[in-house]
Amino acid sequence: MEKNERSTTIPGKEKEVDIINIKGIEDIGYVQPDSIFLNSLTPEENTQCQHGLYFQDGERRVDYILTYHIKKPSSSRSNRQSSRFTDNAFTRSLRRGTARLGRPPPPQPRGDPEVASQDHSMDYHEDDKRYRREEFEGNLRDMGLELEKDEDTKTPGVGFVKIHAPWHVLCREAEFMKLKMPTKKVYEVKQCSGVGAKINTLVNKATEPLHPNVEENRAQNVKHLSYAFSREKQHLFDLSDRDSFFDSKTRASIVFEVLKRTKCTKAKYSMGITSLLGRGVYTAAYPLHDGDVDGENVEPNDRKLLYEEWASYSVFYKYQPIGLVRKYFGEKIGLYFAWLGLYTQMLIPASLVGVIVFLYGCATVDNNIPSMEICHPRNNITMCPLCDRACNYWKLKEACGTARASHLFDNPATVFFSIFMALWAAMFMEHWKRRQMRLNYEWDLTGFEEEEEELKDHPRAEYELCVMQKSLKKEHKTQKTEKEKLTCRDRLPAYMTNIVMMLLMIGVTFAIVFGVILYRISITAALHMSNNPTTRSNVRLMVKTTAAIINLVVILILDEVYGAVARWLTVLEVPKTDKSFEERLIFKTFILKFVNAFTPIIYIAFFRGRLVGRPGSYLYVFESYRMEECAHGGCLMELCIQLSITMLGKQLIQNNLFEIGIPKLKKLIRYIKSKRRSFQEEEREKKLQRYETDHFLEPFAGLTPEYMEMIIQFGFVTLFVASFPLAPLFALLNNIIEIRLDAKKFVAELRRPVAARAKDIGIWYNLLRGVAKVAVIINAFVISFTSDFIPRLVYQYMYSPDGSMHGFVNHTMSYFNVSDFQDGKEPMDPHHLGYQVEMCRYKDYREPPWSNTPYVVSKEFWAVLAARLAFVIVFQNVVMLMSDIVDWLIPDIPKDISLQIHKEKILMVELFMKEEQGKMQFIDSMTPCDGKRRNNHAPIARSRSIPHTHSHTHANNF
Amino acid sequence: MEKNERSTTIPGKEKEVDIINIKGIEDIGYVQPDSIFLNSLTPEENTQCQHGLYFQDGERRVDYILTYHIKKPSSSRSNRQSSRFTDNAFTRSLRRGTARLGRPPPPQPRGDPEVASQDHSMDYHEDDKRYRREEFEGNLRDMGLELEKDEDTKTPGVGFVKIHAPWHVLCREAEFMKLKMPTKKVYEVKQCSGVGAKINTLVNKATEPLHPNVEENRAQNVKHLSYAFSREKQHLFDLSDRDSFFDSKTRASIVFEVLKRTKCTKAKYSMGITSLLGRGVYTAAYPLHDGDVDGENVEPNDRKLLYEEWASYSVFYKYQPIGLVRKYFGEKIGLYFAWLGLYTQMLIPASLVGVIVFLYGCATVDNNIPSMEICHPRNNITMCPLCDRACNYWKLKEACGTARASHLFDNPATVFFSIFMALWAAMFMEHWKRRQMRLNYEWDLTGFEEEEEELKDHPRAEYELCVMQKSLKKEHKTQKTEKEKLTCRDRLPAYMTNIVMMLLMIGVTFAIVFGVILYRISITAALHMSNNPTTRSNVRLMVKTTAAIINLVVILILDEVYGAVARWLTVLEVPKTDKSFEERLIFKTFILKFVNAFTPIIYIAFFRGRLVGRPGSYLYVFESYRMEECAHGGCLMELCIQLSITMLGKQLIQNNLFEIGIPKLKKLIRYIKSKRRSFQEEEREKKLQRYETDHFLEPFAGLTPEYMEMIIQFGFVTLFVASFPLAPLFALLNNIIEIRLDAKKFVAELRRPVAARAKDIGIWYNLLRGVAKVAVIINAFVISFTSDFIPRLVYQYMYSPDGSMHGFVNHTMSYFNVSDFQDGKEPMDPHHLGYQVEMCRYKDYREPPWSNTPYVVSKEFWAVLAARLAFVIVFQNVVMLMSDIVDWLIPDIPKDISLQIHKEKILMVELFMKEEQGKMQFIDSMTPCDGKRRNNHAPIARSRSIPHTHSHTHANNF
Repeated sequence: MEKNERSTTIPGKEKEVDIINIKGIEDIGYVQPDSIFLNSLTPEENTQCQHGLYFQDGERRVDYILTYHIKKPSSSRSNRQSSRFTDNAFTRSLRRGTARLGRPPPPQPRGDPEVASQDHSMDYHEDDKRYRREEFEGNLRDMGLELEKDEDTKTPGVGFVKIHAPWHVLCREAEFMKLKMPTKKVYEVKQCSGVGAKINTLVNKATEPLHPNVEENRAQNVKHLSYAFSREKQHLFDLSDRDSFFDSKTRASIVFEVLKRTKCTKAKYSMGITSLLGRGVYTAAYPLHDGDVDGENVEPNDRKLLYEEWASYSVFYKYQPIGLVRKYFGEKIGLYFAWLGLYTQMLIPASLVGVIVFLYGCATVDNNIPSMEICHPRNNITMCPLCDRACNYWKLKEACGTARASHLFDNPATVFFSIFMALWAAMFMEHWKRRQMRLNYEWDLTGFEEEEEELKDHPRAEYELCVMQKSLKKEHKTQKTEKEKLTCRDRLPAYMTNIVMMLLMIGVTFAIVFGVILYRISITAALHMSNNPTTRSNVRLMVKTTAAIINLVVILILDEVYGAVARWLTVLEVPKTDKSFEERLIFKTFILKFVNAFTPIIYIAFFRGRLVGRPGSYLYVFESYRMEECAHGGCLMELCIQLSITMLGKQLIQNNLFEIGIPKLKKLIRYIKSKRRSFQEEEREKKLQRYETDHFLEPFAGLTPEYMEMIIQFGFVTLFVASFPLAPLFALLNNIIEIRLDAKKFVAELRRPVAARAKDIGIWYNLLRGVAKVAVIINAFVISFTSDFIPRLVYQYMYSPDGSMHGFVNHTMSYFNVSDFQDGKEPMDPHHLGYQVEMCRYKDYREPPWSNTPYVVSKEFWAVLAARLAFVIVFQNVVMLMSDIVDWLIPDIPKDISLQIHKEKILMVELFMKEEQGKMQFIDSMTPCDGKRRNNHAPIARSRSIPHTHSHTHANNF
Repeated sequence: MEKNERSTTIPGKEKEVDIINIKGIEDIGYVQPDSIFLNSLTPEENTQCQHGLYFQDGERRVDYILTYHIKKPSSSRSNRQSSRFTDNAFTRSLRRGTARLGRPPPPQPRGDPEVASQDHSMDYHEDDKRYRREEFEGNLRDMGLELEKDEDTKTPGVGFVKIHAPWHVLCREAEFMKLKMPTKKVYEVKQCSGVGAKINTLVNKATEPLHPNVEENRAQNVKHLSYAFSREKQHLFDLSDRDSFFDSKTRASIVFEVLKRTKCTKAKYSMGITSLLGRGVYTAAYPLHDGDVDGENVEPNDRKLLYEEWASYSVFYKYQPIGLVRKYFGEKIGLYFAWLGLYTQMLIPASLVGVIVFLYGCATVDNNIPSMEICHPRNNITMCPLCDRACNYWKLKEACGTARASHLFDNPATVFFSIFMALWAAMFMEHWKRRQMRLNYEWDLTGFEEEEEELKDHPRAEYELCVMQKSLKKEHKTQKTEKEKLTCRDRLPAYMTNIVMMLLMIGVTFAIVFGVILYRISITAALHMSNNPTTRSNVRLMVKTTAAIINLVVILILDEVYGAVARWLTVLEVPKTDKSFEERLIFKTFILKFVNAFTPIIYIAFFRGRLVGRPGSYLYVFESYRMEECAHGGCLMELCIQLSITMLGKQLIQNNLFEIGIPKLKKLIRYIKSKRRSFQEEEREKKLQRYETDHFLEPFAGLTPEYMEMIIQFGFVTLFVASFPLAPLFALLNNIIEIRLDAKKFVAELRRPVAARAKDIGIWYNLLRGVAKVAVIINAFVISFTSDFIPRLVYQYMYSPDGSMHGFVNHTMSYFNVSDFQDGKEPMDPHHLGYQVEMCRYKDYREPPWSNTPYVVSKEFWAVLAARLAFVIVFQNVVMLMSDIVDWLIPDIPKDISLQIHKEKILMVELFMKEEQGKMQFIDSMTPCDGKRRNNHAPIARSRSIPHTHSHTHANNF
């Protein structure tokens, strides 16, 4: 029986397993209790322990690993080591005994290591750590965990503690954690009948190749009813295979739960696992991966399956095996990938519509009356110079190209598209809520609520350290040992630093944007002075592009800087819990990165070209730089260039260069290095234990960077979508790669993270909502202020003589009498165009020179402004209302899921009612006067003493 | 032991109790099982059963009552009755036996009663109902409930089934419902220390007289740890007093839970309790009140305490005893009153600020330059006539009074106040969330999540009936008995009716508002023709007031109509569950009542005075009615009058007249009637059983009307607060009465509702949020468009020569050349003012007659419009942002509560860990080789067969 179970998990190894079992019983068995061995097994024996996935006995699974630093072999080492390794139950219980008597073990009374360490030798420090470890491990054993040490590995200087959770610990903890486990009871998941079913099967067949080749992802017709695990209700669960009842992820998280609860209390200040890790008593703590991802004869495991069916570019078109991801990495990471998958999926329609809108712009560019008028050969409008002295009067015809190009992004379809994208964002939110709910149901998280918080409410090591130092200080003064906490006053310096640094960083961003503006202005003026005509004609494009690239580079550099600064600032704050640390870090990073990414874009969209002044009284920066104007087509074109360069650049460089390139480079370096070393070492590396291999992987650093990257991308997709309809397409292409890239990272390059239960993506959902909300307003402003949409409408319906757009270009431009130029600002070569210019035109709504109030803003200006503002109000409120309606119309819980949940509840009650009746009948059959007792609950209930024992009998006899 | 417990609940009755107990054991005891007695007890015995709060044995509490209709005494009655009353275990089990064999009892095969009833006699119908009752009651007994019948009460024609839930049923159901009950474990609630504590005690002392004289409301220093009740963990709970472990509310809801689950299945279509009630098999189902509220020698009970300390106008200034309300009525009703209390409390600062703003208006009315200019004796502006022909030119001085009055509501403080109120609304929402969380914690609802839904997911009787009819029809055709549900197609007619009726109703509202407008226009014109000068001077005020009163009356009438229509439409829709019924009903009622209440107000605020046209080309309705203008001070004044009349009138009439007056009237009528009847009857009435008294009370009809009233009031308080700063004060005064009024209703006039668990106020919160959101936009528009705030600002900063408001009145008025009047529209008496008028002025921004484009809107118009729109955008977004920040800054869970919850969790884990260790030690002490086994978990866990029994032993031996 037992053999069979093992062999199902490791097929083709039956023979070896037999040997292990026998060995395990022979030399470990029930004789030696605590199973700390000298790691004297030969390499052959090591491979028998399945490369470190099991204890030396080959029986007990390694569920968790703690590593610590051991000193390089020295004279004293072997002595100390042997003393530790002969550590048996007797000496331990002796030590425990002394501890209980209130006498701490020898090294402890010397005070806290952090304070005293400066005076003491390194050796003492090491000893202290070792005692702490011993105490901690002893406590772990008291909690029922089983430990095995391994110090003599091929990785010098690192000791490993392998932790195994036996069955009774698993059960106990699962009960505490209220883990929902599948019961024996199965029920049929109702499929829709009739036409629905046919369509369903058709769709399923059509999408068959899109599904990954993974069992967990198949739609199943039967589902196991889940119920919070409880030892009293053990009979409900299928415990025939105890090894696989709790999967490796669950076992690891259970061990982690125990670790978090265990404290070292012998020293003056109790230390949890986070403190121990924080102070280097242990160097790392991680669960093990399930096995190797590649290699010749690797047994099939979930990790390998994930590597093949998920973390591979060749399956980029397939759905993700989310069920398996969750099974392997836990709910939190599963949710991230589910979210990323849904986001990518939702980008498909968005990018489709975006492409159509773009194509519509391309198709109608030749029918666009304003650009036709600008490009018309008979058009003879003389424009005022674009810069002082160096620039000349120019013909509007010259702006033909820009005008045509800007039509691509400035047409009525764009307005439609930005409404569409606002609704798309609302739909995306709703779909995510539904998907989340469905996953919650499928992953048996319904009803689970608070555990998540508890998981994160653990104080951080840094916080504990701070509190300790504070209370130590206080103790010196007051001799009280009250439990301290950090007050506002303690944190004031950190908060001040935070505020100052945040403002400084934002200031830096603004300064850099301003610098780029100055660069643009001065370069434009300088290039205009050049005599080369081709240079002059390409000036605008060149300047725009180089400026955008400079911006991009700055953004990329500052992004890294800001990430580091935000982390540093958060560490400075010493937040109490991991949760609050994460939230504060996210908040700061989000603000800094958003400001960094969007400041240049916001400048171009809303400020550029507005603060120009007018001919004759231009606005100057530093008294000499005239503010830049936009080309005739509005600033939308420039916004578009800036956006596309920033977005593409960020994605290409950050994702591909940083995320793909750098690991490759590292590998290359390692390869070159390894060539230099002896081959033998490489050979040995191959035979590394599982826990050693995993130790070499990068530790898991949280999902924050992944989410942050996506949120910023979401910002690019929604915030300025009115000016750049191709953004969703770029995002889609990026994300298809991103998913597999992240998958590869998680499967192959990171240590396995401890599975965390989570019902939702937490703060990220709120950030997404916030971005989507801001997007509505920004798009409203982009359409009404940056684009020419509203002036065109106003002209068409208020001023146009025939209701067409003919004459619009003329209407938007005011007259300027060149004699009104300030001294020294007029063009150096007034005859450049071949004739004497008396009036030049500029784009603004101002009174002509011949009116009573020359150059004052005209009635048209106010009318257009009113129309623009009215559009903003209407757009914002209509879109928000529509989003709210979408929100309201789509139920948060999918219909079938809510039915299913309801059904499960009824089944559960039925199951228990049957059980109750079973108990009753059982009791009835036990009591002698059967027929009479049967209807006799009343008297039983009335006599107080009987039912107490009575109901106990129920519980016990069942 | 037992005696003592009873006597604590009924002090001063010990002697009688003794008798009861003896009697109970003697003649009921353990002999006769099912305890259905002939109700042959004498009245004296009845009083001994504590007026019907207990079964005849005086032991078992009546937890629930079902009533049914019995035929008036006829020849067959006694016969049938006796046969029913001799119904004993034998016959019942016999019948059950036949049912199990698949042979239904005789009357059933005749088919469904609903379909067949038309052909059959009344008598058969009664029989059928009786059989159903018998089956249902049998099923209830199978579920473990105990029943007692009482048909021969003083209430003719009504039979009562008293239901008692014995201890084991209570336990079982509490476990299913995952009721959190207090455990024996207590812990100290940490009070803030140091300065905080002192302030706290001071505040507590100061507010001492504000706290109700109720135990439940005292702040306690220790709290019982709560844990979901489970029979396996019985040892955790303090079960020494089983009678009071589950309070009466919990018992009732447990019985209700069982009732809902029990079905009559013998007939073709299974019927739950809702169906049985819906089809008159039972006429009512209700739990019992705890006792009488008044009377000479009524023993103290929760109801009486509530009546004295809560449902009384004399305690209007005190906090509500929410804990006791919850204890008696359950969480849902407790939440309503907590919400109402918080709302009222929050209205105090709002009305304070409102009064200050109003006083500020009063104080500054003499310094207001525009009204000073209007009232200035040298002011000589001639205004254009306000209506055609009948009206004359008039001097602006005449508008002096209105201008001064409108300053009261149209001053900068109003802008501040509407921002304040928007933030107030956000604060209110946040505070409510926190309060809710605190209550959830105090009421042990944390962690409870889904049960609520299940409670409401029960299909409604009407739905079941509809489904049944449908499947019957289908069966006739296809012979299939598949489970049916109502599809969209079945519901299409109802949906269509719904849409049509809703549109019609909204149309009716619009039509009536339009009618009132016409009334106003025509009456104004008619009164202007009158020769009486006092009449003419009072015309405006009179017309305004009468129109507002007409509006009010219409609103009041339509309110009732719409309530009925909404209910009818929802019944037509046949929603599946009570929850969906409630939601649909709320949705419809909300829309109709809101449209009804706010249409006239919105008309006055945003349309009145805008669609006037200009002198010379006025806008006409029906070609003869000229649209009304506002007085010079803007329409804000009129808006204010309309608002105050509607709000005050609604509150005074609906609350006071309808809610207080009508019950008083009913009582009066009853009193007059009872005088006519014999005194004997009155005498007997006093001796009615508890369940009979309760039967005469009104059934509980849900909280929807109460909430709806408050939401509409909230609308008045927030939506147009910019125009009426006294609204919060009126609301406050109303609510102080409302709380006690509702309390009286619940305590004394309604049957006790079944306690429903609820974590939040559900849909109402969303509606409140929605109203608060809309309020921001509406206030933005009221300030910028209805008031003169923006034109004043624009004048001051753009046009005023000296930056002051001097000349503002002149600036807002355009010139009109009287020769441009259309024929027949000029005033009949052009010399009325004593001189020939050539130019008259009107309030608008238009070009003067002497410009190139006379009477066309001027540049100022567009500038002011742009400023107004810009203000709307800024106001809306700033206020929304501020609300969001308030939302974000105030944590949803109060700090102390989250700490407390965290602490509780840790305590719980500690408790269980101790328990685990206890088990371990117990096992250790049982096993012989103690010392060795102690550190020996490893081998135990390794051998697969041992730990299974091992852990079982744990569970059982504990």
